[in-house]
Amino acid sequence: MTQEANDTFDIRVPSGTDDPLSDAEIRRYREEIDRLDRVILDAVKRRSEVSQAIGKTRMGSGGTKLVHTREVAIINQFRQEIGEEGPALASILLRMGRGKLG
Amino acid sequence: MTQEANDTFDIRVPSGTDDPLSDAEIRRYREEIDRLDRVILDAVKRRSEVSQAIGKTRMGSGGTKLVHTREVAIINQFRQEIGEEGPALASILLRMGRGKLG
Repeated sequence: MTQEANDTFDIRVPSGTDDPLSDAEIRRYREEIDRLDRVILDAVKRRSEVSQAIGKTRMGSGGTKLVHTREVAIINQFRQEIGEEGPALASILLRMGRGKLG
Repeated sequence: MTQEANDTFDIRVPSGTDDPLSDAEIRRYREEIDRLDRVILDAVKRRSEVSQAIGKTRMGSGGTKLVHTREVAIINQFRQEIGEEGPALASILLRMGRGKLG
């Protein structure tokens, strides 16, 4: 687990009806979701920038913009780690990394 | 920009054909993409756990699992920050946060 994703507090998952989160916990958990959204958005933006820089170099040197095997490996990694939503999330990142084609 | 997304190096984006990234730079940029994927995956997993804990409490107290206005606000934030792929990425996070319904 990377530092940034896990550097705050342990999450208590209620088991059912007799141990609900308190209002204070719910506020804190919402703030944590906002913080994690910030981490995700910033990482996605930077990833796109880095990927586009590589793509430009490949195209400039007559190569293809995409490396299919690497893209397939990333999709498989995301499926393995987060399940059925993995491929869709990976595909979004890959599309953003290609930037505007042409 | 959160620390974790931006704590390594500045990205050089080639302008065209005369300033391609070197092989060393491409290797380094690929490693950065792998690092950012790790940040994204860990943050997505933790976000799902936090969100599901909130959902369980809401259901346990007879509330709805979803807070529509908050979901719409998150979708709009993602659209605003990363453009056309934003809503699809936000929707993935929201679905994962709901966990298995029922």
